[in-house]
Amino acid sequence: MNVAQEELQRNEGGEVGLVSAQDFHFSEPFEFESGQTIPEFDLRYETYGRLDSSRSNVIVISHALTGDHHCAGFYSLKDSKAGWWNSMIGPGKPIDTSRFFVICINCIGGCQGSTGPKSVDPKTGEPYNLAFPFVTIRDMVRSQKILLDHLEIESVYAVVGGSMGGMQVLQWAIEYPSYVKRIIPMATTWRQNAQALAFDEVGRQAIMQDPDWKEGNYESDQGPNVGLSIARMMAHITYLSDKGMDKKFGRKRKASDTPNFSFDIDFEIESYLRHQGKSFTNRFDANTYLYFTRALGYFDLEASYGSLDAAFEKVEARVLVVGFTSDWLFPPQQNREIVLAMLRQGINASYVQIDMDLGHDSFLVEAPELFQLVRDFLG
Amino acid sequence: MNVAQEELQRNEGGEVGLVSAQDFHFSEPFEFESGQTIPEFDLRYETYGRLDSSRSNVIVISHALTGDHHCAGFYSLKDSKAGWWNSMIGPGKPIDTSRFFVICINCIGGCQGSTGPKSVDPKTGEPYNLAFPFVTIRDMVRSQKILLDHLEIESVYAVVGGSMGGMQVLQWAIEYPSYVKRIIPMATTWRQNAQALAFDEVGRQAIMQDPDWKEGNYESDQGPNVGLSIARMMAHITYLSDKGMDKKFGRKRKASDTPNFSFDIDFEIESYLRHQGKSFTNRFDANTYLYFTRALGYFDLEASYGSLDAAFEKVEARVLVVGFTSDWLFPPQQNREIVLAMLRQGINASYVQIDMDLGHDSFLVEAPELFQLVRDFLG
Repeated sequence: MNVAQEELQRNEGGEVGLVSAQDFHFSEPFEFESGQTIPEFDLRYETYGRLDSSRSNVIVISHALTGDHHCAGFYSLKDSKAGWWNSMIGPGKPIDTSRFFVICINCIGGCQGSTGPKSVDPKTGEPYNLAFPFVTIRDMVRSQKILLDHLEIESVYAVVGGSMGGMQVLQWAIEYPSYVKRIIPMATTWRQNAQALAFDEVGRQAIMQDPDWKEGNYESDQGPNVGLSIARMMAHITYLSDKGMDKKFGRKRKASDTPNFSFDIDFEIESYLRHQGKSFTNRFDANTYLYFTRALGYFDLEASYGSLDAAFEKVEARVLVVGFTSDWLFPPQQNREIVLAMLRQGINASYVQIDMDLGHDSFLVEAPELFQLVRDFLG
Repeated sequence: MNVAQEELQRNEGGEVGLVSAQDFHFSEPFEFESGQTIPEFDLRYETYGRLDSSRSNVIVISHALTGDHHCAGFYSLKDSKAGWWNSMIGPGKPIDTSRFFVICINCIGGCQGSTGPKSVDPKTGEPYNLAFPFVTIRDMVRSQKILLDHLEIESVYAVVGGSMGGMQVLQWAIEYPSYVKRIIPMATTWRQNAQALAFDEVGRQAIMQDPDWKEGNYESDQGPNVGLSIARMMAHITYLSDKGMDKKFGRKRKASDTPNFSFDIDFEIESYLRHQGKSFTNRFDANTYLYFTRALGYFDLEASYGSLDAAFEKVEARVLVVGFTSDWLFPPQQNREIVLAMLRQGINASYVQIDMDLGHDSFLVEAPELFQLVRDFLG
């Protein structure tokens, strides 16, 4: 019995189960925040659960930098892994698909089916590459709203997501105040600090200085894999915490207890990171990595709206912000500041800080406290 | 008037002034901890101040990963920069060269004049490259002791250094208990945690996956500059702190106040990091970076001696360990653990934690509290 089958059997009835992605084609021009336009675009998405007759049971899941639309279920019984938030989403789970119609959309600029740098520009018949417009968090949200309008969804029960997903969640509530009833941004920030900007820049430089990058004009199967894997390895450290890494890896060695006096893998953490780097290049496009990290860096609610208070002025949604004590990439304090500003605007907002060792990636983990929170907040 | 001249004038009489490096050649075989040997070696070093008649006023300065023997003074009046610890070392300064004879030695395995991977193997007439033996912190210290013996120095008043330098400082006191009278290890650790191991591994991978690395067999002027600069940019972030970076750079932009919608430099932190990466490749050898980061990772006093207490069992030196609150690479707690173990061994040891925003690199900065501490401890 393989992983998918086991999972389906173990949770009898509690799983989204087999799913498939859908494509939405929008044949009109889309103007990005940068002023650049594209003549048309596609969005790839998945849905779980049923839209109720009043079309009011919609939950939008926003994915993070390297995530995608496949957030729950399996594509086939041969899959070794479920969607990235499968523990959170399903019948009877915190985001309960027996009650909610859940939709998750690969962001515009992405590389998993939605239009992005590696898509063909209809004007030239060639991939956009760096001619693709710069993407902002607001562009991601505005393009997703076009799909929701197409699906005749007239309001959204909740928008939920972590990290870059959390930024989109905030932007949803700001951009469409009466449309969005509840939001749960997690492990996020209203603007990156210098350290987070710095790590993203190193990742981009690793990619852009890789000779295989070719100013973005690489063939899809001959991309800057070295640079992309280095960027990923480094970023992965920032998604964990020192304490979490010490617990999981510490100084454990792969083979013997003593130094192997070589530059091959000696410590287990080295093996883990190399694997993370390598497997990432099989599933992610380097140009999308550049565009999305720029989107992260450009997200600054204070700069965009004059002040954080002004950004939240029109928000109507009920808000639950979740920060994680061990998250040093988007530290708890940055999450808390969001709620403090919202409270000054009279918004029904709560902040909960969860004490886990898993760093920034805590939101992705099955954790009783987090799951109960989400369940309760969604009512 | 240039920088060197200005500095010399401003601090009339308080500067080491013009200095030059010296070379020591040891023509006998040296066996490394790994069991590998080299038939001979050179060490490049600098000294400041005068050795007194009893030869008992010696202070050894141990340099960090990317440091070298040039820790004070200028080589010429045209120099734009003094040695890396010039603020700490000089007549009347905390490490007072009117009183002490200060010596700083480029570590074996280094790239600034001491024998290292880019040195010629006398057996082959070719550079060692990866045939160079693996270097440990203990190898660094043992080779330096050979030079001190050659200089007929019979005891050392103090050994002082931060980061990798701090590891050497500890090793000095362990290896030569009656020889070393005082030590000041700063911003250091008795063994790296998983996170620090991880960052070093990413740096090495950036170098080793650079096609110009060529299994270490690059020509000196055609090295893996991309990989080395990426490694440096990333590592540089770990030497600072989020708070320090926010104060210095925040989200300040280079040109306009709004996004430039490009992958060129937009934020100042990006410009700073690119400069750090690029300038590093002009002064440092990639293979040495590999060897020294391995030395950092392999340093583990518990593994080497059975326990931290056992490691310090024979230490006779008086000890001042200095940790820095904002240092998240070698966090204060790791510095504190050193002193706790020493106190259990009855060693005269103190721990001082200094609250500065500058992260791991705090020890390199002119800071009144740190400087007064060092001055007082050296008596």
